Amino acid sequence: MSTHLELLSSHACFGGEQRFYRHESGTIGLPMKFAVYLPPQASQGPVPALLYLAGLTCTEETFAIKASAQRRAAELGLALITPDTSPRGANVPDEAESWDFGVGAGFYLDATQAPWATHWRMESYLMNELLPLCTAQLPIDAQRLGIFGHSMGGHGALTLALRHPGRFKTLSAFAPICAPTQCPWGEKAFTGYLGADRTSWGEHDATVLMENQPLAPYPGGILIDQGLADKFLEEQLHPHLFEAACAQIGQPLTLRRHAGYDHGYYFIQTFIDDHLQHHAKGLGAAA
Amino acid sequence: MSTHLELLSSHACFGGEQRFYRHESGTIGLPMKFAVYLPPQASQGPVPALLYLAGLTCTEETFAIKASAQRRAAELGLALITPDTSPRGANVPDEAESWDFGVGAGFYLDATQAPWATHWRMESYLMNELLPLCTAQLPIDAQRLGIFGHSMGGHGALTLALRHPGRFKTLSAFAPICAPTQCPWGEKAFTGYLGADRTSWGEHDATVLMENQPLAPYPGGILIDQGLADKFLEEQLHPHLFEAACAQIGQPLTLRRHAGYDHGYYFIQTFIDDHLQHHAKGLGAAA
Repeated sequence: MSTHLELLSSHACFGGEQRFYRHESGTIGLPMKFAVYLPPQASQGPVPALLYLAGLTCTEETFAIKASAQRRAAELGLALITPDTSPRGANVPDEAESWDFGVGAGFYLDATQAPWATHWRMESYLMNELLPLCTAQLPIDAQRLGIFGHSMGGHGALTLALRHPGRFKTLSAFAPICAPTQCPWGEKAFTGYLGADRTSWGEHDATVLMENQPLAPYPGGILIDQGLADKFLEEQLHPHLFEAACAQIGQPLTLRRHAGYDHGYYFIQTFIDDHLQHHAKGLGAAA
Repeated sequence: MSTHLELLSSHACFGGEQRFYRHESGTIGLPMKFAVYLPPQASQGPVPALLYLAGLTCTEETFAIKASAQRRAAELGLALITPDTSPRGANVPDEAESWDFGVGAGFYLDATQAPWATHWRMESYLMNELLPLCTAQLPIDAQRLGIFGHSMGGHGALTLALRHPGRFKTLSAFAPICAPTQCPWGEKAFTGYLGADRTSWGEHDATVLMENQPLAPYPGGILIDQGLADKFLEEQLHPHLFEAACAQIGQPLTLRRHAGYDHGYYFIQTFIDDHLQHHAKGLGAAA
């Protein structure tokens, strides 16, 4: 029996629809919300889609409200799928005590450590449940998927794209956490979700994953935008490490460093059109 | 001595800056916040500006976050000034009990009734304090101002534009309350702020104000967009009454009715570029 998607609301937007859904997630064991923007072209048949992963503290609404992406997505005929950033309502003790761990901070991996392992299974949720659900029940082409994200979600985009070869045809990120095994956010999250033994951590570190690629996995190139006034850049993000890893294995990377831009959605909206264009090109979308 | 504008934050955005300010308002008798988007052209000298008035429950942040206006404003060289929707922190009893009266619901007029008359003076605040402050202290051209708004803020835009001839050169609105003396929102607000005697109410009703114009006050035309799936349309907004008043006195009005669109910011962002273009043309801005 197919999972029921409960449509919470739908809003006409640039000739398409910005929808918000809730569903019972078998993978997470709790209800999960997500949003999807369907461009006008979706009324004619399946369209390519981008999975956007948001950053710490965000929800499925953040990108839909703040990123100004719908205009260009409508022009290009791209759907935009935006999941939540963690399980909610699990009642794990202290789950909402930190803004950078637990609720709103799922890091897009499957936790292996108690008490998180029961519900914090965001990687399996996205790859094995949400995407199949979207491509089965919505006019989205399973063969033309791209992935991008911001900050923690940039980490998610880079790591999921590298851990699931062939699943996504295109990849980009805004201010991603590029080397979580080497920054406080990542060390805190991985210690909690994966345990203090660092052996397995590299499997969820974009820089380590890239260093271990036999061939460039995205020959069409990866696009990353990074603001130079981003207060998290030096301590948490480390794009230069990912840049070096790409160079090492010959992965084309366009890493743009923007003077004056910070970590927020005013930065993202400034460059969102370029990301949509990057994906549209790789996915063979219109325009 | 000039009022000090306290810069709370500034975010690079499309080559310009999205700023958030706080200042001690003499008119309101309390601190007030507002936001301003300065396009890249503002670094070269004063630019034309639009005053955007938001709807019920909104703040100075709402438009900046949700309307997707900065991209086109940057291209056109328009500044965007977005005030809050009411005083806050006045400690009037029950001021926050209703979402459509009191806090977040100033209706852009000066209250005459106790206990509101002391602080709820949004018209004087905007016209005699905020705009002069912005044009004096920011690179904004006092001779090239337009005004627009949404819902309660659409009411504010239409009424302030008609009550202050010559102050604004251009006018538009999204889903405005067009005849507040004939709808529940307006009746509740005007009873509370202006008193049960309806004699003075017409001075703050866009339809009444338009009917009483000797000549078309905006010969370049007024632009209004209205969604037909807007749940407030029938009971609260009454654009047909304003349309009839414009026709009566020969005021050019482009009233666009959009099937499927609701009352929210997904509707606004869909048509925001057209509004910015409308104002840019009337203000002699670039592009």
